Amino acid sequence: MATGFVLISVEPGAEREVFKEVIKIEEVADVHLLFGEYDLIVRVEADDYDLIGEIVVNKIRKVPGVVSTKTLARIQL
Amino acid sequence: MATGFVLISVEPGAEREVFKEVIKIEEVADVHLLFGEYDLIVRVEADDYDLIGEIVVNKIRKVPGVVSTKTLARIQL
Amino acid sequence: MATGFVLISVEPGAEREVFKEVIKIEEVADVHLLFGEYDLIVRVEADDYDLIGEIVVNKIRKVPGVVSTKTLARIQL
Amino acid sequence: MATGFVLISVEPGAEREVFKEVIKIEEVADVHLLFGEYDLIVRVEADDYDLIGEIVVNKIRKVPGVVSTKTLARIQL
Amino acid sequence: MATGFVLISVEPGAEREVFKEVIKIEEVADVHLLFGEYDLIVRVEADDYDLIGEIVVNKIRKVPGVVSTKTLARIQL
Amino acid sequence: MATGFVLISVEPGAEREVFKEVIKIEEVADVHLLFGEYDLIVRVEADDYDLIGEIVVNKIRKVPGVVSTKTLARIQL
Amino acid sequence: MATGFVLISVEPGAEREVFKEVIKIEEVADVHLLFGEYDLIVRVEADDYDLIGEIVVNKIRKVPGVVSTKTLARIQL
Amino acid sequence: MATGFVLISVEPGAEREVFKEVIKIEEVADVHLLFGEYDLIVRVEADDYDLIGEIVVNKIRKVPGVVSTKTLARIQL
Repeated sequence: MATGFVLISVEPGAEREVFKEVIKIEEVADVHLLFGEYDLIVRVEADDYDLIGEIVVNKIRKVPGVVSTKTLARIQL
Repeated sequence: MATGFVLISVEPGAEREVFKEVIKIEEVADVHLLFGEYDLIVRVEADDYDLIGEIVVNKIRKVPGVVSTKTLARIQL
Repeated sequence: MATGFVLISVEPGAEREVFKEVIKIEEVADVHLLFGEYDLIVRVEADDYDLIGEIVVNKIRKVPGVVSTKTLARIQL
Repeated sequence: MATGFVLISVEPGAEREVFKEVIKIEEVADVHLLFGEYDLIVRVEADDYDLIGEIVVNKIRKVPGVVSTKTLARIQL
Repeated sequence: MATGFVLISVEPGAEREVFKEVIKIEEVADVHLLFGEYDLIVRVEADDYDLIGEIVVNKIRKVPGVVSTKTLARIQL
Repeated sequence: MATGFVLISVEPGAEREVFKEVIKIEEVADVHLLFGEYDLIVRVEADDYDLIGEIVVNKIRKVPGVVSTKTLARIQL
Repeated sequence: MATGFVLISVEPGAEREVFKEVIKIEEVADVHLLFGEYDLIVRVEADDYDLIGEIVVNKIRKVPGVVSTKTLARIQL
Repeated sequence: MATGFVLISVEPGAEREVFKEVIKIEEVADVHLLFGEYDLIVRVEADDYDLIGEIVVNKIRKVPGVVSTKTLARIQL
């Protein structure tokens, strides 16, 4: 099981719309609005990291209003 | 009482317009134009941090010309 | 209820030790090792943001091996 | 009159000590502890920007525990 | 022989298109899609660094969908 | 005499046009195209830092194609 | 097969020593000294991303002189 | 002829010492103390970029008090 934390910056004013769309994505485990350098944090769960990458590129980044994303992948040692 | 310092980047040329709009927001205590990495610094005062977040998202980030914001929240130890 | 996501950078080699110490902190809800720009992500839960700030400054940042922290506060709109 | 906002990062654990030392500097108008990317924000007032630079280099950056500073200078248009 | 590693950020949704265009550029040795802070990493080989700069400015940055680039030049000691 | 070094990021493809416009500004002492994190570096000379700020906001940032600027002010100790 | 590009910052003066140690790590495919924001770029190949994470934490970050690392993981769509 | 602009961060308090040492380096054309995100900007001139890299690694980064450097290389189109 792979987990990614996606930090999202959105166009000013698009926070709620992006929140509502991102939360509908099947592999998204939770979403929070943030205060600070990024606008949203999203936790994505998938079978492996190639899938996480695919979800970020094909689903999250395609939500209108998303300006940029930074994905932090969880590692298990 | 909660205090947030909002560092704002604006579209080139929009500095004055953003300044004039942001200063009208009730919870904005002061605004300064900056020289360096950010274009404006705004001090926001509200009853708690959820309100600060709401003001940043619903008021400051909706001012035309605002490109991105970074909010630094004051803590009291 | 206030929630903070704390992105931690640690001294190279201190990842596991910091993980083990941070997870013992009462208000820490979960901790993950990361791959990328930061070394650990920690979720902190407390009654308000002043408490989150206190936990970050007095507990998390005092763990040996922590080099810097960036706290992202959750907002509820 | 020149104004600079100095964002300070400190060694973990040194927040209070740095706060107490910085607030003693004559040209420092106010200091706040922060939550997020920086640890302290300091407002410095002086006659001109060369003086602001001198205060940052000779006084603020010499406080034990200060790791790095980023100065944002106010401009008046 | 000069080598540059170009880290590219693209408009959300343009990842594949940019990949397909960048790989056609003669001096591009390889391209990978990334997960994290940047979207693509491109290795460019040319006779000298002025040529690398020219390829980045005249070819890579002109691909539609490229938002920003950061070039890391290889040095040989 | 005040000196500012302005690091400019431009829209991909606008490098030469921005260069040609910026070099015409009276207070601009020199301009170089860069390879790396920023696209241009500009040295501005003026009587004081308020003037440097004014030139950055009113002249440099108004050149079409400029996306963002970061100004580093010279200090004399 | 998983691939990670590790951008390394080292203590000033430790560039060559870190280079020599990193290149001995079995899973390291190539290493280059850089000019710019990072000091070295390392390509790591392993069976999966948990292994890449383990190599970064247990081998690369333990090389004396390494100050920080940023890992960019390759994705395959 | 190759030109590099080296942005230097120094240990707090080491500004003047680093300035005095860096200015003695033969290939250093000029040095300025800065106000903002970096502490010093240094212009280096050499026959080619491999030499610029060598000067940065072997001379500038070896000056005691230098914490990190970011080199921006000039390109000529």
